[in-house]
Amino acid sequence: MKTVAIIGGTGHQGPGLALRWAKSGRYRVIVGSRDAAKAQAVADSLNARLGKRLVEGMHNADAAAAADIVVLTVPYSAHLATLESIRAQLKGKVLVDVTVPLQPPRVSHAYIPPAGSATAEAQEFLGEEVRVVCAFQNVSATHLSQLDEPLDCDVLVCGDDKDAKAEAIALAEAAETRGFDAGPLQNAVVVEGLTAILIGINKRYNADGAGIRITGLP
Amino acid sequence: MKTVAIIGGTGHQGPGLALRWAKSGRYRVIVGSRDAAKAQAVADSLNARLGKRLVEGMHNADAAAAADIVVLTVPYSAHLATLESIRAQLKGKVLVDVTVPLQPPRVSHAYIPPAGSATAEAQEFLGEEVRVVCAFQNVSATHLSQLDEPLDCDVLVCGDDKDAKAEAIALAEAAETRGFDAGPLQNAVVVEGLTAILIGINKRYNADGAGIRITGLP
Repeated sequence: MKTVAIIGGTGHQGPGLALRWAKSGRYRVIVGSRDAAKAQAVADSLNARLGKRLVEGMHNADAAAAADIVVLTVPYSAHLATLESIRAQLKGKVLVDVTVPLQPPRVSHAYIPPAGSATAEAQEFLGEEVRVVCAFQNVSATHLSQLDEPLDCDVLVCGDDKDAKAEAIALAEAAETRGFDAGPLQNAVVVEGLTAILIGINKRYNADGAGIRITGLP
Repeated sequence: MKTVAIIGGTGHQGPGLALRWAKSGRYRVIVGSRDAAKAQAVADSLNARLGKRLVEGMHNADAAAAADIVVLTVPYSAHLATLESIRAQLKGKVLVDVTVPLQPPRVSHAYIPPAGSATAEAQEFLGEEVRVVCAFQNVSATHLSQLDEPLDCDVLVCGDDKDAKAEAIALAEAAETRGFDAGPLQNAVVVEGLTAILIGINKRYNADGAGIRITGLP
């Protein structure tokens, strides 16, 4: 069984992903935080919801070290600093970057970082020893944590390594939704920016977790 | 009744849009082309399908001059040249730009023009006298022309003028689908780039017209 670590896993997106992946029984799941005690507390509360001790809590670096697949769910302002803090532990692994480069307070405006996307920044920063893909930016934290309801949002996965994309697609399936190969890392700008559009749609159309589905498939 | 002109309307996307809008009975519909005879021939064939003379064919500039709302459906390589050819006729009007900045042969890679998007290029080129919005990039030409089948693709509309966005949303509704205010012109990069992702999904998943739906609405 592969181990997935969710770095910054005590924030908005992390706990819901941890719940879904733990529930699937397909992964060993670790929630990471800068504060190991906080990670443990969040893991405890998730385990209470699951009715089983399935999720572990660790310091971010320990979580990354223990993982086969590392998932990053931090605010954009903490993106590069967090990557720096787990750089040594990422070597040779797959990094699934969930970061959306939002520029508060204009969180419904798509912002394009100089490298092209947050995912491209991560890949540039980490170099070729880490295979970076983007995924899960469009799935609402609200819906992720509603364990009894199926996710009604597809996961678009971008990256330059096919095997790494397959890992992220498998994670989407373990969360009981669909994952799609959405092309090269260059396309991450679209998937990240779509989150800004969905945040705007939430506000304008009074939704609390707009998402997307791909239509027109055979 | 408002008049909508589809510039470059004899290509892939234009005829299907013309069919849907003519069928709705909500607009006078003109198909434009650089070649007036070709525009007329396409209008004739659409009218044959509709069983009524509803669509007119004209030279692009005449079509734009006659219209309240101008819709642009040309390949990216013809984008600025076409805008130049109808610039005088666009003043004071709404331009709905359907152009996707694809860079053949890499049509499944999202390309970002220097201005940020094709729509932003159009707005910069035309200046404040024309209100530019983007819409309809994600709707497949194949499905548009299948008049008997409802469109299974939402239309994301970006622009900096709320009334202009409302015109595009009304056009989406006339095509029997949903249009969403997807935020400022700055977000057009996402909607345009999503088409590259959908083209890639068509190839990888053997679809001929992948689209998107917004989920999670109240």
